[in-house]
Amino acid sequence: MAESKGKFVVRKAVAEDLTAVRSLIQELADFEKMSDGPKISVQDLIRDAGLDGGKEYMHCYVAESVGNDAESQSPRVIVGYSICFFSYSTWEGKSYFLEDIYVQPQYRKSGVGRLLFKYVAKKAREYNCPRLDFHVLDWNPARQFYEKLGATDLTSKEGWLFYRMNTTQMEELLKE
Amino acid sequence: MAESKGKFVVRKAVAEDLTAVRSLIQELADFEKMSDGPKISVQDLIRDAGLDGGKEYMHCYVAESVGNDAESQSPRVIVGYSICFFSYSTWEGKSYFLEDIYVQPQYRKSGVGRLLFKYVAKKAREYNCPRLDFHVLDWNPARQFYEKLGATDLTSKEGWLFYRMNTTQMEELLKE
Repeated sequence: MAESKGKFVVRKAVAEDLTAVRSLIQELADFEKMSDGPKISVQDLIRDAGLDGGKEYMHCYVAESVGNDAESQSPRVIVGYSICFFSYSTWEGKSYFLEDIYVQPQYRKSGVGRLLFKYVAKKAREYNCPRLDFHVLDWNPARQFYEKLGATDLTSKEGWLFYRMNTTQMEELLKE
Repeated sequence: MAESKGKFVVRKAVAEDLTAVRSLIQELADFEKMSDGPKISVQDLIRDAGLDGGKEYMHCYVAESVGNDAESQSPRVIVGYSICFFSYSTWEGKSYFLEDIYVQPQYRKSGVGRLLFKYVAKKAREYNCPRLDFHVLDWNPARQFYEKLGATDLTSKEGWLFYRMNTTQMEELLKE
C-alpha cells in the first residue's frame, strides 16, 4: 500500500532503499547534534527490517519525490524516512512507537512530512494500535508540527520522564 | 533461567501467573493515580506474551516470595512483575524497553525490586540489547531507586520529551 500526494509517494521500504535511509539517519543525527550516534550499517537495517527473511524488529517507511515522472523522466529520490516498531502498553496492549521521522530540509513545507506522518498513523490503525508514541528533543522546532497534527507532550501534561540505562551502566550493575 | 535471593525468586511468567500479574497492573495504575487505565484482560496478557503459542509482543517476568518453603510450606506468592519489549534504536539497533516494573508496597526495601530490575538488565544483555529505556512519572519516589541502579534521566540530561497520539487524535488526523 502506497500513499501519494502531488509529487510524493510514501511506501514501505525495500532492501534497495536502505542505503539512502542510512544516510538520512546520519543527517538526522547531525541535526540532533549527535553526529557520532549512528553505529548501524545498511546490512543491519536490512536484517532488522526483516528484509532478508528473518525476524522483523522494526518497520521502515520511505517518502519519495517522484517529480513529474511522465514528463520529466526524473529519477525517484528518497527524501524522508520513518522507522517504527511495536511497543506494548499494559493499559491497552500492543501499541506503535515512532522511533524516527525525518524529511530533508529542502523538501519541508511541501506536505511530505505530513504525508509520511499520516502514513504511520494509518499503519498504527491497520495494526490495531491505539497509540502512537515518540520522543522529541525540547529544542526541536518540529514539536510545533507534531502538535498541529494532534500529538500531546506527555512530559508537560502528565510529568512523564524518559530514562535510560546504557550498556556501561548495565554492566556496572550486573558486576555486583 | 530463574534468579533467586533470600526469600525471592525472579523468573519468566507462565500463563498461570497472569491473573496475579493483572491485579498488580491494577495496583500500579492506582499508584499512578490512573485507576481506569488498564483495559487489558488476563487472556490478552497470555496471548500478547506468546504463551498461547502465538507471536510474542512482550516479555513478562514475575518476582515470587517463596517463604521458607521447606519449613513453613507457605505458598509462593507473586509480589512483583515487569513487562518489557524489544524497541529499536536507529543508532544501535535492537534495544530493550521496560514498560512496567512493580513490587507491592509491603515487599519493598527487601531487595526484591533490585533483583527484578537486575533480572531485566540481564535479559537485555542476553538479547544483545545495548540499552534499557523506560518512562517514570516525575513525582514517583522510585526515581531515586532507578538512579541508584545507574539509570539516567534523559529528559533533564538531554531534553527528550515523551509525546503521544491516542486513537481519537489519530482518527481526527486521518479524517482529513
